[in-house]
Amino acid sequence: MHAFAFDAYGTLFDVYSVTALCEQLFPGSGSALAQMWRAKQLQYSVLRSLMDRYTPFAQVTEDALVYSARALKLDLTAGQRSALMGAYMTLDAFPDAKPALRQLKSMGLRLAIVSNGSPAMLQAATNSAGLTELLDAVISVDEVQIFKPSPRVYALASTHLRLPESEIGFVSSNNWDVNGAGAAGMTTFWIQRGAAEPQEELGHPAAHIVHALTDLVAMIR
Amino acid sequence: MHAFAFDAYGTLFDVYSVTALCEQLFPGSGSALAQMWRAKQLQYSVLRSLMDRYTPFAQVTEDALVYSARALKLDLTAGQRSALMGAYMTLDAFPDAKPALRQLKSMGLRLAIVSNGSPAMLQAATNSAGLTELLDAVISVDEVQIFKPSPRVYALASTHLRLPESEIGFVSSNNWDVNGAGAAGMTTFWIQRGAAEPQEELGHPAAHIVHALTDLVAMIR
Repeated sequence: MHAFAFDAYGTLFDVYSVTALCEQLFPGSGSALAQMWRAKQLQYSVLRSLMDRYTPFAQVTEDALVYSARALKLDLTAGQRSALMGAYMTLDAFPDAKPALRQLKSMGLRLAIVSNGSPAMLQAATNSAGLTELLDAVISVDEVQIFKPSPRVYALASTHLRLPESEIGFVSSNNWDVNGAGAAGMTTFWIQRGAAEPQEELGHPAAHIVHALTDLVAMIR
Repeated sequence: MHAFAFDAYGTLFDVYSVTALCEQLFPGSGSALAQMWRAKQLQYSVLRSLMDRYTPFAQVTEDALVYSARALKLDLTAGQRSALMGAYMTLDAFPDAKPALRQLKSMGLRLAIVSNGSPAMLQAATNSAGLTELLDAVISVDEVQIFKPSPRVYALASTHLRLPESEIGFVSSNNWDVNGAGAAGMTTFWIQRGAAEPQEELGHPAAHIVHALTDLVAMIR
């Protein structure tokens, strides 16, 4: 392994603050809103890709929010909408992210993000979490105008890092994302921080399972 | 409008009997299983399409069942698995389906199914529901090896019926499917048999909303 490519949201960046703001704005319905919003965000990104109707992730995320609030019969004001979208710009990194990236970098590995996020969203989150100087590349699907798990997205890691797919470890908390990277020829690491869940039945299960990003350091040594 | 193309599962065919069998086999967990199974079936069909890893709908449906049972910690035996898959082969049509198709056909419209279903699944369901002689074409995505909402799927209706997309009405109970057909240039009809739900935020909302398939007859007259 000469490099690692990381998924962003839920893998390096903790979206807990978005959930917390949902609950603060809609007491009692916040967790249902956050859950549906996240599911719709993924669903819309995949459906739009298949429809040949790509639109940047910031827009997909806002569309998913609007739908979810409507489905849950919550009255979403323009101010609330913009506050919730803004929460995506100032995410914290998970506590294991910075120490893991720092150690991997010191071992000579090249590090990248490969994310559905729009370039501006990714830059804001990377800066806000203090990860910018540790990353060799911050790669957005926007470059190929199609979302994960299209193989064209995972191929970007290879292009940017100038390494064959097989020498790049791909790390994600989303098992469907792991399956996509595996189908594209990468060596995959599924990070499961919480309770054990089954792998998706998509034909390309994770090659490795880790429980913290710092586990990667020991596996590489 | 010179023709109608119908989605199959949930639009012409009632999958209630599948849900009922879930509940019979797993009392108390059947509705959770049926719900997750349906969501995963859609998710896997879209993810596999985007991964360039098409596999027929019968397999996607079985994979979705296996995952859902595992996620819900239900012990699914080979016999139960095959019984549940078999339930897809003998579905009833909704009560409004046959009368609507018969009237539309007598008015000279050409009628087709355009479905994610595998050819064998569609043939079995069409025969079982007694709709075979009313349909000019039963079209499966299997022909193009990609699932809805790819525009390549909706284009099949135009090819088989030898009519431009704009002269074919597309009818589905799934709003994402309606959006896909609309993006592909068809005139769309969203059938909402139950409680009102918001349209998906995918840029191509339904041109018309109906509450029973027989409503189409009055709209065409």
